[in-house]
Amino acid sequence: MSILQESKHRITEEIESAAKWEGGEPEQLRRRVAAGRAVIPKNPAHESTRYCAIGEGLSVKVNANIGTSSDFIDQEMELQKALVAMRYGADTIMDLSTGGDLTEIRERILREIPLPLGTVPIYEVACRMGGRGGILEMTEDDIFSVIEQHARQGVDFMTVHCGVTRQTADVLSTYPRITDVVSRGGAMLLRWMMHTGQENPLFESFDYLLEIARENEITLSLGDGLRPGCISDATDAAQIAELALLGRLVKKGREARVQTMVEGPGHVPLDQIEANVKLEKAICDGAPFYVLGPLVTDIAPGYDHITGAIGGALAAYYGADFLCYVTPSEHLSLPSVEDVREGVVASKIAAHAADVTRGIDVNWDIAMSKARKALDWDQMLDHCIDRNRATEIRERFSATNAQVCTMCGEYCAMRISDEAMIRRSTKSSRKDGEKPD
Amino acid sequence: MSILQESKHRITEEIESAAKWEGGEPEQLRRRVAAGRAVIPKNPAHESTRYCAIGEGLSVKVNANIGTSSDFIDQEMELQKALVAMRYGADTIMDLSTGGDLTEIRERILREIPLPLGTVPIYEVACRMGGRGGILEMTEDDIFSVIEQHARQGVDFMTVHCGVTRQTADVLSTYPRITDVVSRGGAMLLRWMMHTGQENPLFESFDYLLEIARENEITLSLGDGLRPGCISDATDAAQIAELALLGRLVKKGREARVQTMVEGPGHVPLDQIEANVKLEKAICDGAPFYVLGPLVTDIAPGYDHITGAIGGALAAYYGADFLCYVTPSEHLSLPSVEDVREGVVASKIAAHAADVTRGIDVNWDIAMSKARKALDWDQMLDHCIDRNRATEIRERFSATNAQVCTMCGEYCAMRISDEAMIRRSTKSSRKDGEKPD
Repeated sequence: MSILQESKHRITEEIESAAKWEGGEPEQLRRRVAAGRAVIPKNPAHESTRYCAIGEGLSVKVNANIGTSSDFIDQEMELQKALVAMRYGADTIMDLSTGGDLTEIRERILREIPLPLGTVPIYEVACRMGGRGGILEMTEDDIFSVIEQHARQGVDFMTVHCGVTRQTADVLSTYPRITDVVSRGGAMLLRWMMHTGQENPLFESFDYLLEIARENEITLSLGDGLRPGCISDATDAAQIAELALLGRLVKKGREARVQTMVEGPGHVPLDQIEANVKLEKAICDGAPFYVLGPLVTDIAPGYDHITGAIGGALAAYYGADFLCYVTPSEHLSLPSVEDVREGVVASKIAAHAADVTRGIDVNWDIAMSKARKALDWDQMLDHCIDRNRATEIRERFSATNAQVCTMCGEYCAMRISDEAMIRRSTKSSRKDGEKPD
Repeated sequence: MSILQESKHRITEEIESAAKWEGGEPEQLRRRVAAGRAVIPKNPAHESTRYCAIGEGLSVKVNANIGTSSDFIDQEMELQKALVAMRYGADTIMDLSTGGDLTEIRERILREIPLPLGTVPIYEVACRMGGRGGILEMTEDDIFSVIEQHARQGVDFMTVHCGVTRQTADVLSTYPRITDVVSRGGAMLLRWMMHTGQENPLFESFDYLLEIARENEITLSLGDGLRPGCISDATDAAQIAELALLGRLVKKGREARVQTMVEGPGHVPLDQIEANVKLEKAICDGAPFYVLGPLVTDIAPGYDHITGAIGGALAAYYGADFLCYVTPSEHLSLPSVEDVREGVVASKIAAHAADVTRGIDVNWDIAMSKARKALDWDQMLDHCIDRNRATEIRERFSATNAQVCTMCGEYCAMRISDEAMIRRSTKSSRKDGEKPD
């Protein structure tokens, strides 16, 4: 029986464990999972995975993408990225490999990384068809056989671009965009649909997809194949048409007892983020919202972990549940291991900034602030999201006094205000007749 | 006659030039300057400075702090930082030096950097008094003589912590904080006030300060000496009491024809940023708002350029006019030259993300997006906020095809969707009787 099915009746082991990790109430989480407002991606074939709940009322989670490309294949480096992502706090990993032995790298990640693993099966279909040109020859069977293989191997959640359909493609061609389709999976399916004249099998045979998902306990992540690829294209007719369709598929997913979440943009200017989140929550009846960024400007390749952190923080504040990280390499190159670290930390900052507004993990900030006031550097460094980075910077120039830092030196405001405040409280508690100093 | 005075009657050279740089209407800017809703910091004694307007309806500006500390004195490095800050787009520089020959470094920056320069004179007063302990001995004359010296030397704007008064200090002691006072200038003045039992001279003799400012055409930046130093202290009674006082001082400044802006926090959680900006705009009658960050969480030393970019983007979106950058070294160390670059770029991203929501500089994003769609890498790199960084990353792994990047390799969505879209438009324009392919 599936987690979603069982959650109607009882607190399962997954719910118990995820709630414990979250520091929340199992019964409350059970109700959210049962309503489809939270998901716990967990394939029974994937052993020793942390149970991670994503959705309403929970701390905001972060996903890190790793994976080889057709241009650069180094399994060791990709595994290293997954380890670094986990070390810096990623909650899930997606393997987006498109180069080398895809089954093998997935197997290694499943074995070595105890986090829920996601994939985008259509990528592997394209690889099996022999590359870009081969996409045109793929059949519905090719697609579903890869999905089943991923499911049996233990993949916990899968991105499926069910929303790129003849109808939404029509909307897309009616309202021109600058960057058309920037989702790889979405573009592949659209290309195939244009060539064959057929409907997207992931939409046409959605019931079959649900069957596979239910049998293997796969959480479906409904991909936004028509997400905007630049802020000028944001929140347009095609994007919203696809979202409306995904809302209907969420409903079917819930009826079939399949855990379902919804992916969102992409590139979105600051003033449209709130609407994007609220629209998803309304149209998809509170289904967990998994956003890719969003990037609030297009002009910062090399710093898109920052544009993504700005958009991600705001999206999460307005209710997005799950942030896909963005690395400094986005739009430029496959990320390096160091980029993965930067990307995960930036997304974790965004997630945490939203969490504290809901009272989640505020004690972390309070502990840091108390250590800061006490000029207790050991404690301060312990509370840093990235202790290594902070230590490196702190040690760059040598301070004359271990208590302060080289920024303010002897004019450290913490010390001076301490002297002022102590003086003040001494004064105000002074009894009559005591000599003022 | 001062810019503010003259702006009542005519479009001055400063207004003309700043409006041109902005791409806006001189007459509109004139009205804003005349109303005190925009400022153009410009000391006539500072030659060859770019005229930079800050305030309502203008693009969001970015300031970069540089300066020696008592622990680390290297004038060349600080000048290098100022140059790098300018190269990456800083609109103004503040010299916060507290170590070495302060007059000389200021002189060099004034000569070599054609951007408006700001200082915090109270720092130099402390240095002249022989350091932290000497603060207690300073007199009102000591403070004003440094302010006059900075003014005659050509400093364009100055931070003056007029809002740390006996009354606001009382509020501070009534409502305890975790980190008390984190403004260096604020802490120094508070310490002195506690020791001497006297009122803050910058408040008590505010009229005299206005006289000096008017005579020398100094723009006053009313410092927020009681700004919160952690998100738990944000938007508390002391901060708001100080803001209310600053609102009164803005009014006096305008009456005296002195350009005035207001500094703001600091550390502020995401859900309090809108209120902070709107409160300042209401209380200070639309005076330009200069925010220090704000940092949306306390737990990320080493990445505070990112926490600051999140807060800064949101503050600017809600109406803040001027962002003080934060570097990765904040809370840890004096920044390196590289940190200055990271800090400026992060703040510029935040500023630009807010600008585009008001239709300012949107063409930059559009040009980038068109280049991206055309896979025109030369153009893409040209449009990057930091071309050098983007080029380094792009060249990290070598792509098999110069058109794409190593992230997606042959599965580049831009290419695949292009094929799909071309196909689609061919189909839809096909006439009856033509053979479908």
